[in-house]
Amino acid sequence: MARIAVGLEYQGSAYAGWQVQPAAPSIQAVTERALGRIAAMPVALVCAGRTDAGVHALNQVAHFDTPALRSLRSWVLGANSELPADVTLTWARPVPPHFHARFSAEARIYRYLILNRTARSALHAQRATWIHRPLDTGAMAQAAGLLTGEHDFSAFRAAGCQARSPVRRLTHLGVVRRGDWVVIEAQANAFLHHMVRNLAGLLIRVGKQDAPPEWAREVLEGRDRTRSAPTAPAAGLYLAGVRYPPAFGLPSRPPEGLLPADRL
Amino acid sequence: MARIAVGLEYQGSAYAGWQVQPAAPSIQAVTERALGRIAAMPVALVCAGRTDAGVHALNQVAHFDTPALRSLRSWVLGANSELPADVTLTWARPVPPHFHARFSAEARIYRYLILNRTARSALHAQRATWIHRPLDTGAMAQAAGLLTGEHDFSAFRAAGCQARSPVRRLTHLGVVRRGDWVVIEAQANAFLHHMVRNLAGLLIRVGKQDAPPEWAREVLEGRDRTRSAPTAPAAGLYLAGVRYPPAFGLPSRPPEGLLPADRL
Repeated sequence: MARIAVGLEYQGSAYAGWQVQPAAPSIQAVTERALGRIAAMPVALVCAGRTDAGVHALNQVAHFDTPALRSLRSWVLGANSELPADVTLTWARPVPPHFHARFSAEARIYRYLILNRTARSALHAQRATWIHRPLDTGAMAQAAGLLTGEHDFSAFRAAGCQARSPVRRLTHLGVVRRGDWVVIEAQANAFLHHMVRNLAGLLIRVGKQDAPPEWAREVLEGRDRTRSAPTAPAAGLYLAGVRYPPAFGLPSRPPEGLLPADRL
Repeated sequence: MARIAVGLEYQGSAYAGWQVQPAAPSIQAVTERALGRIAAMPVALVCAGRTDAGVHALNQVAHFDTPALRSLRSWVLGANSELPADVTLTWARPVPPHFHARFSAEARIYRYLILNRTARSALHAQRATWIHRPLDTGAMAQAAGLLTGEHDFSAFRAAGCQARSPVRRLTHLGVVRRGDWVVIEAQANAFLHHMVRNLAGLLIRVGKQDAPPEWAREVLEGRDRTRSAPTAPAAGLYLAGVRYPPAFGLPSRPPEGLLPADRL
């Protein structure tokens, strides 16, 4: 029995999320089916971060156990020949039996992409959140700074979140503008359900100057989800990478230049 | 009667191209229908560059004449509310009656986007051409340099091309690598049918080292399409911008940072 870790890129718009659902397509289901064809027997996947409906991934990480002997190249090329065009295996690596895609992860990196211009975008519909009012990214960055650190993030937690503790270590929350684009990057040991989208929702409200940056501290300390901003749409969210202890030797970040850049 | 110029962004995968076709969806048809709803009467569009099936645009320019009085904002927001998500009006400007989207254009800028990595891409399927063999961009740039200038481009012209002369002034043909991305940029007074994709096809063959850079000159001077490389796929091609005399005051390039960049 071998344990294999794989990297996945996906455009999540057509899916009900990572997790297998009774009556809706899921990333997990299509990937397990594809890998199962290559293994010629069922494959069960465990992922690092269960993304929601409509959320994308640049470098999701998952693992599976299989007695099937295939080259790493066969897993990748074989699965891709069975996968729909909006889900791709980007790499495969052998890992020791104590590796676990979810529990071995030291950090998850998410990016939230906002297109901030007057006209909506044809090329980025479903791939970014469009906000036509100019965002004050200075104020957003200031609010973001008040949210980093180890905190009780109850104010940013979905009603149905099943985590035992609301405490998370948000090691980085950055806001960068590049032309018409505003990118929020969040890194934490782990995230509560909807946490990144709720953080983005608050930062967007501050960016629209509907609330001052200091409101971030008030919301955080209030620990009351109902007094925060609306959850930002799924379309702007990307699981960008997962960091593991270096000994596992796994690609933790999306490949350099994964997205085509404004040089296009 | 007023003449209005508009900018268009589109993801061309679902369309048979710009031009109205009897039995297939076209960018022109959906845009004329949307503008017609706003004008409350038929609108006929003339564009700067008739893109083929599956080709995208960052800043296509078109004009129309109408007696309908609407604010520029109404044309843009109104049309977008009627357009499908993969076609967007990005701006509208009044232009004098002697402006013509096609004949007033001084230059067209196209970009050809290649994703050059081992694994295919889920996020960029239909939006870039995937080439898994490493491309030698130095050799590609060298070949590109042999093709710039005013030439008879018969070797890069589709069989059905209806242009009277095969001579074009290719003022710029550049090849840039950024991480896994290779971008070919071409600027000319005008292009022959399939010319950018045929130039890209040749550069790709040179990049794969299946032909030396000097082969570019041989193909150009041979003026024989059948002795060149295959036409590169439509999915990688973007009409990036159209340049007009500055007096018209039109946006000639895509807005800064239009595509989200490898910073995602």
